[in-house]
Amino acid sequence: MTTCFFERHHEKIESAINAIQDRGFFSAYPEVPSGKIYGENAKSDGKAFFDSVIDSQFSLSQSTNGDWVGGEASPYGINLGVTYPEVNVDDLMHSMTQACNDWRKASVETRVGCALEILDRLNKKSFDMAFAVMHTTGQGFMMAFQAGGPHAQDRGLEAVAYAYKAMLDCPSEVTWKKQVGKDDFVTLDKQFAIVPRGIGLVIGCSTFPTWNSYPGLFASLVTGNGVIVKPHPQAILPSAMSVRICQEVLMEAGFDANIVTLVADTVEAPKTAELVQHDSVSIVDYTGSSEFGEWVEANAGDAIVYTEKSGINSIIIDSVESMKPVSGNIGFSLCLYSGQMCTTPQNIFVPKGGIQTTDGTMSFDDVSQAIVKAVDWMLSDQGRANEVLGAVQNQATADRVDSVQGDVLRSGDGIGHAMFPEARTRSIKIVKTNSSDLVTIAQEHFGPIVFIVETESTEESIQLASSIARNHGAISCGLYSTDDDVIEQAIDVMTCAGVPVSCNLVGNIWVNQSAAFSDFHVSGANPSGNATLTDSAFIAGRFNVVQSRTCVPVEKKVEA
Amino acid sequence: MTTCFFERHHEKIESAINAIQDRGFFSAYPEVPSGKIYGENAKSDGKAFFDSVIDSQFSLSQSTNGDWVGGEASPYGINLGVTYPEVNVDDLMHSMTQACNDWRKASVETRVGCALEILDRLNKKSFDMAFAVMHTTGQGFMMAFQAGGPHAQDRGLEAVAYAYKAMLDCPSEVTWKKQVGKDDFVTLDKQFAIVPRGIGLVIGCSTFPTWNSYPGLFASLVTGNGVIVKPHPQAILPSAMSVRICQEVLMEAGFDANIVTLVADTVEAPKTAELVQHDSVSIVDYTGSSEFGEWVEANAGDAIVYTEKSGINSIIIDSVESMKPVSGNIGFSLCLYSGQMCTTPQNIFVPKGGIQTTDGTMSFDDVSQAIVKAVDWMLSDQGRANEVLGAVQNQATADRVDSVQGDVLRSGDGIGHAMFPEARTRSIKIVKTNSSDLVTIAQEHFGPIVFIVETESTEESIQLASSIARNHGAISCGLYSTDDDVIEQAIDVMTCAGVPVSCNLVGNIWVNQSAAFSDFHVSGANPSGNATLTDSAFIAGRFNVVQSRTCVPVEKKVEA
Repeated sequence: MTTCFFERHHEKIESAINAIQDRGFFSAYPEVPSGKIYGENAKSDGKAFFDSVIDSQFSLSQSTNGDWVGGEASPYGINLGVTYPEVNVDDLMHSMTQACNDWRKASVETRVGCALEILDRLNKKSFDMAFAVMHTTGQGFMMAFQAGGPHAQDRGLEAVAYAYKAMLDCPSEVTWKKQVGKDDFVTLDKQFAIVPRGIGLVIGCSTFPTWNSYPGLFASLVTGNGVIVKPHPQAILPSAMSVRICQEVLMEAGFDANIVTLVADTVEAPKTAELVQHDSVSIVDYTGSSEFGEWVEANAGDAIVYTEKSGINSIIIDSVESMKPVSGNIGFSLCLYSGQMCTTPQNIFVPKGGIQTTDGTMSFDDVSQAIVKAVDWMLSDQGRANEVLGAVQNQATADRVDSVQGDVLRSGDGIGHAMFPEARTRSIKIVKTNSSDLVTIAQEHFGPIVFIVETESTEESIQLASSIARNHGAISCGLYSTDDDVIEQAIDVMTCAGVPVSCNLVGNIWVNQSAAFSDFHVSGANPSGNATLTDSAFIAGRFNVVQSRTCVPVEKKVEA
Repeated sequence: MTTCFFERHHEKIESAINAIQDRGFFSAYPEVPSGKIYGENAKSDGKAFFDSVIDSQFSLSQSTNGDWVGGEASPYGINLGVTYPEVNVDDLMHSMTQACNDWRKASVETRVGCALEILDRLNKKSFDMAFAVMHTTGQGFMMAFQAGGPHAQDRGLEAVAYAYKAMLDCPSEVTWKKQVGKDDFVTLDKQFAIVPRGIGLVIGCSTFPTWNSYPGLFASLVTGNGVIVKPHPQAILPSAMSVRICQEVLMEAGFDANIVTLVADTVEAPKTAELVQHDSVSIVDYTGSSEFGEWVEANAGDAIVYTEKSGINSIIIDSVESMKPVSGNIGFSLCLYSGQMCTTPQNIFVPKGGIQTTDGTMSFDDVSQAIVKAVDWMLSDQGRANEVLGAVQNQATADRVDSVQGDVLRSGDGIGHAMFPEARTRSIKIVKTNSSDLVTIAQEHFGPIVFIVETESTEESIQLASSIARNHGAISCGLYSTDDDVIEQAIDVMTCAGVPVSCNLVGNIWVNQSAAFSDFHVSGANPSGNATLTDSAFIAGRFNVVQSRTCVPVEKKVEA
């Protein structure tokens, strides 16, 4: 069965390994939510699945204390009422440790095969997942489908590919023969075993519960570790669905389901700290706020910790050929999922003297107004606004929008939702400020809050964007310039600050987007996180190679 | 010039990259101290060099406050009297940060070429290095030549190979083209830059100042970082000689010498803690005691830390065909460098009921006496004893030998040195104890101190060896058994405890030995250290890849 999984999907893993080395465009799971691909009834089946889990107990095949826990509410105003098996942490660790013994001993291809089968089944459930992601994160349906489904699956496959490649990096055995005299040799048979670190803990976030968690989940799993998925208490369902599929595949392959488990909790009674500090946890993958991320980094003991925290992203506008495609592109980036992406720009730096365009100088105020107008247009149609903005995941984010003061160029008032009247919405609040206002711009304002910052010059814009990134982290940077020297200088400075720069994006590509197999998400080189999705460093610490060597007796020489 | 270095040595790096993937026997630098290889006068030139540096100021081309510092004394009883440029740490960091800007921007091949040229020049100076290593560590001349020279150079080359391979893992640029409509494409030109972490600190030990330091030095250097070499205050000279060669090559290649620097200090006024805690230090490579190693791990802040600390190594004797080749092999392992290798066995576990041999059962006492006799024979000739034992590096080690009490089977009294009457020597002290004496056997006794431990059974021997390794660390384990089931079980249990097992070693191969390009030194999977010399994980954290991407304008369609 397990060999069969690997054989079934071996072309996919080979393509993925080629892709991580080429880094050109590659995707294994179709991003178009089409009935032709996913089945004519896939969407209605997904909706029916979602309706069926509302107010139900979501069963899993794992260690539990028999109680049920959960308290999710959709940002669209629906109370989910789903509960999940509650665990006693020590009992869970015991069950997992027992379960993982066979998993460690399984062949690399067996583990990779299981992971590929899990991803395949996740892909087939992409519509189910879309509804679950939409109603926990507040993403619009299209985004929930793509980011929660195929894009997350691509990120998972990318991690499997890196892990498989890393495990193949060392042969499993070799004969070592050294000449120690004219006719004398020492011969050793050497074997190299992959030893997983133990149990990996994957701490999910409330905005991208699958996309941000699959890399750590699959990287730890494929390298032989057990995995605890600890979702945000407001976004459990997508993780629970993922864990259920993991457990089904593992059991079919003859393993104990406790290799991958869910720990659900509530905002009122969180369990994350207990898990992070538990002796049995050897790996932590964390996505979430910088504040708690720093606590995790400091309190995980001997566990190796991979973090994606948060940052303060910038757009630097120096010069453009034509403003309209630029402001249109920026406008969409600001609106998408109400600015709740870790890659959404917060500070837009524009020189006070304005910028050069093909049609002459454009003033600071005209640049600002072009951006405001682009956002206005994007949100002028309620259907489009609802789909692009989605809903605001957390009340604290909505409150933050309301509380921002200053020279407000555009209000952040909510836009009514056509389908979900109780949805929590905010629009994009745009505030003008200047480069001396470090209290504002050198602080993260998570959500749909944008500052257009008047600087002395593009040089100051670059200096501010880079120093903020060095001190507080940044995950993206957009640059608009028609001057090759400016582009070269900005890229060099921002690269040293660990920030990937996207230059002159217009049309159907946005600074927020990060494509699996090509874009490295988070560089690991500034305070926004210490890890990259996905590179070799993201894999390397999850297992050790431990060798053994055995003397091969010297053959007695036969006297002639 | 720099391209010329890479071209000059490109066959060597290609062979090394093949070797780390095959892991069969490979060595780039000849281990035989032959005049035919190293020059007819190489040994006398080496001695003359050593004599010339005694009581001199050892100049370097780096930041200094103008003072000179040093206080090394040879374990062979000679006061070295060499002093080295003293540094002001903040000034040094400033100079290095400036110097490293060009180094970061240099091509990968330029950096690899410089490293290969450094290794080549180190190799040519192997006899000079042998005298320096001998008179700082106390190693015998042959070992000082091999471990301090070619074997250390091989370890350095291995790190260069892994680093080069890791940097080639990602292309430097790619065109990414995604179909977004029937005839519509988005095209991005992407570039991927290698961004070093900053400054690496390499903390050396007193026993293997080059072998244990070169991997970290070369791994950090080749990936674009500056490197501070901070030797043990009693073993500075080998590091200073290495740094001088680094600086010479860097300057010839047009770089600032402050890319690789030495920080010398004294036992009375140590500088290591200040360096570890300095904000500019981003990487720490540490070899030394567990106690200080744990302090380094806890106090290095955001720096990534690679440690080789210490462990408690075991030999498990279950059954043998014939005892004589076994006890002879063990005897040499115990004697080599007076038990001061991190791989030297400390606890030898033997069942109280004795062991099976081809000639019947051999009692516990007979096994013990066979080992004692093998050591006695090895040390029965003064010349051989002096060469194999060398001298004791540190007075604390000598005192430890003297203070060990118990059922002493063999005393650890010193053996006079034929050439150096003032040499600090101890012989191999062998003490009998049993498996309940955890106070003794679950504690590290660094130096020529060996316990032969009576156990209930081989099962208990394996259990003890593995639990001690899990709790206190272990770097090597020797196993003697003629029973395949015992071998399989012992390897599985010790592998899970992160300890490489060497089975049934006899003849010219010893458990202490770790061959570059084939043996992984320290697994990283138990408390003896968190890093391996050398694997991908040892490289991965030393640099990040930061990308940039630029929109390629869509070509206007020409209407027909």
